[in-house]
Amino acid sequence: MNTKNFRFHMPVAVHYGVGIAHNMTGWIRGERVMIVCDPFLYQSGVAEKLGGALEGKTVSYFSGIEPNPSTVSVDACAEAARAARAETVIGVGGGSAMDVAKVVACLVTNGGSIYDYYAGGTKRFGPRAVKLILIPTTAGTGSEVTNVGVYTNPRAGVKMPFVTDEFWADEALIDPEMTYSLPPAVTASTGMDAFCHAIEAYWNKESQPMCDFLAMGALKTILENIKAAYDHPDDTAARGAMITAALVAGVAFSQTRTTGIHAVSFPLTTEFHASHGAACSITLPAFIRAAKQGAAEKLRVLAGYLGYADADALADGVEALMRSMKMPVRLQELGVREADIPHIAEVGLTAAIIQLTPAEMNQETVEALLRSIL
Amino acid sequence: MNTKNFRFHMPVAVHYGVGIAHNMTGWIRGERVMIVCDPFLYQSGVAEKLGGALEGKTVSYFSGIEPNPSTVSVDACAEAARAARAETVIGVGGGSAMDVAKVVACLVTNGGSIYDYYAGGTKRFGPRAVKLILIPTTAGTGSEVTNVGVYTNPRAGVKMPFVTDEFWADEALIDPEMTYSLPPAVTASTGMDAFCHAIEAYWNKESQPMCDFLAMGALKTILENIKAAYDHPDDTAARGAMITAALVAGVAFSQTRTTGIHAVSFPLTTEFHASHGAACSITLPAFIRAAKQGAAEKLRVLAGYLGYADADALADGVEALMRSMKMPVRLQELGVREADIPHIAEVGLTAAIIQLTPAEMNQETVEALLRSIL
Repeated sequence: MNTKNFRFHMPVAVHYGVGIAHNMTGWIRGERVMIVCDPFLYQSGVAEKLGGALEGKTVSYFSGIEPNPSTVSVDACAEAARAARAETVIGVGGGSAMDVAKVVACLVTNGGSIYDYYAGGTKRFGPRAVKLILIPTTAGTGSEVTNVGVYTNPRAGVKMPFVTDEFWADEALIDPEMTYSLPPAVTASTGMDAFCHAIEAYWNKESQPMCDFLAMGALKTILENIKAAYDHPDDTAARGAMITAALVAGVAFSQTRTTGIHAVSFPLTTEFHASHGAACSITLPAFIRAAKQGAAEKLRVLAGYLGYADADALADGVEALMRSMKMPVRLQELGVREADIPHIAEVGLTAAIIQLTPAEMNQETVEALLRSIL
Repeated sequence: MNTKNFRFHMPVAVHYGVGIAHNMTGWIRGERVMIVCDPFLYQSGVAEKLGGALEGKTVSYFSGIEPNPSTVSVDACAEAARAARAETVIGVGGGSAMDVAKVVACLVTNGGSIYDYYAGGTKRFGPRAVKLILIPTTAGTGSEVTNVGVYTNPRAGVKMPFVTDEFWADEALIDPEMTYSLPPAVTASTGMDAFCHAIEAYWNKESQPMCDFLAMGALKTILENIKAAYDHPDDTAARGAMITAALVAGVAFSQTRTTGIHAVSFPLTTEFHASHGAACSITLPAFIRAAKQGAAEKLRVLAGYLGYADADALADGVEALMRSMKMPVRLQELGVREADIPHIAEVGLTAAIIQLTPAEMNQETVEALLRSIL
């Protein structure tokens, strides 16, 4: 067992239950609530149904959240929340809306722009006076139990994480019903994103026992349920298992951060327009093979626990699972050409997390890894 | 997978590292610190060594904590902490000193006696202004990561738990060094107490996926390390693994509570003077067999994960392990006679947690369970 120093701190109160997102009046602080979501969730009536179930509260909505949310959207949302004098901010969605809600809940009373606190800004958030509630609508990001938000500067086109203890939500409401209408392709890509979170926590150079145990459980649960949720969107047991696994994987990587898979996903998302889950999982089998370099014994134990002969068999199994869900498994399927590989490697290597991978990560090794799945 | 509603909330910041208990100045709030411990820890100089390492702080000590701490000790300690105007309270020890530190940290600024808030008292603690740090010296109780304290009313001889969110510590410092000098008998009994915490979280009627994963990891770690720590007290790897497993088991049962094993341990402790760990683990094999009634599938999975053919083989294996560490495995070894069994069952059944056992628990079934290990 690992005997390195470690820290575990995840103060969010997590509540799991079918239908609880429509019974959350008791968790609200004050009278004025702002719900932050994406346009689809608003136009489909889902957000208004959540707000309508808040008895005796004044609810406003900010539905202008795009994928890979921009700092411009953050500031616009914060302005709207201040105008509405929100006492509770609820982020509902995949990672984007939850990430925006995190920083908006801080900006309501701290004032100013996100740039006053982030990316060179020198101010620090005081204690957050506004209550923050997060409700995932995918079984994937785990953002509901992390203290990280990722925002994109639209001028520079740069995606940058913002980490602060003020981003820990007061409550995370895990309601499987919110995922029942996810289409199969989204079930697959977000579920494999959660798989990446768990395995990256497990093999991480900053791994630790608490997170190892959680990651193992999440990985087994995903392998046992993702295909059922993909094939049968109305399989409520599989949906419950998947959103639970995404939560548990989120808790695991909230302590360790991620590794090379997520580092390399950034250029695949911003430049090749892959979904976050597809951009991550496309390199997953190759990173499983690479991680044997520094985590051979841990991967042997994990493969056995998951029912595979060894790490290579696990990598093959994951790739076959992805194919069975029509996910891309070769970079060419995303439009990547041989000539793009040096640049993708270079951008991936600028993310500090890549050095948490249990293998030598440099221009040469990352290019070789990418070529192996071209 | 379980799809019942569940809640997970464990806000304590956990820090693990060899030697960190002697480097905790950075975690202290204010200038005046009170260290709460038992007489042995004070007389042996351990407590003063911890206090002496606090640079620039005024440190006072309250070392009058007995096993199964009384409400009288609690009130005396609170009075001393108020007189010292403590801004940080540090509980160092097994469960007893940590449990006392929890309530004392609340009483310093809330005022009054424990009985104003507990066992019929009608006052409620306001937010705790005094910082609370807990440092376990055994790999067992898990009290450092629970919001429960257990106190004994010396007049009535009744042991009663007190649960409040104000008891979550600010920091738990997990320093394996604190356990290096534990004698083998204490290593065995406290380690098996941690085993009981984990398995009682796992088979609990209030079990939940997060805690299941943690419990499985803790159980495997204990089985792999307890004998090494018992045979070789200076095996630092085994010590580190054991205190980690006790921590993880603590997190697991902090969410679910315990079950029949702990319920029945209360009369065995108070009336037959068994140590807490011995009083718990003596019924462990019998409860593993009983729990098959309601948790057959979960026990089958667990037994397989732990390397046993089935739950009965696990029960046999645990009993053999206990024998190998010279722990009592028959009630007669504690001085219990056939005629005592109805009374022990009756007292055990007064603890509400006994109904969290996944088996029918009534006078008849508990007596039968106890007779099977007389």
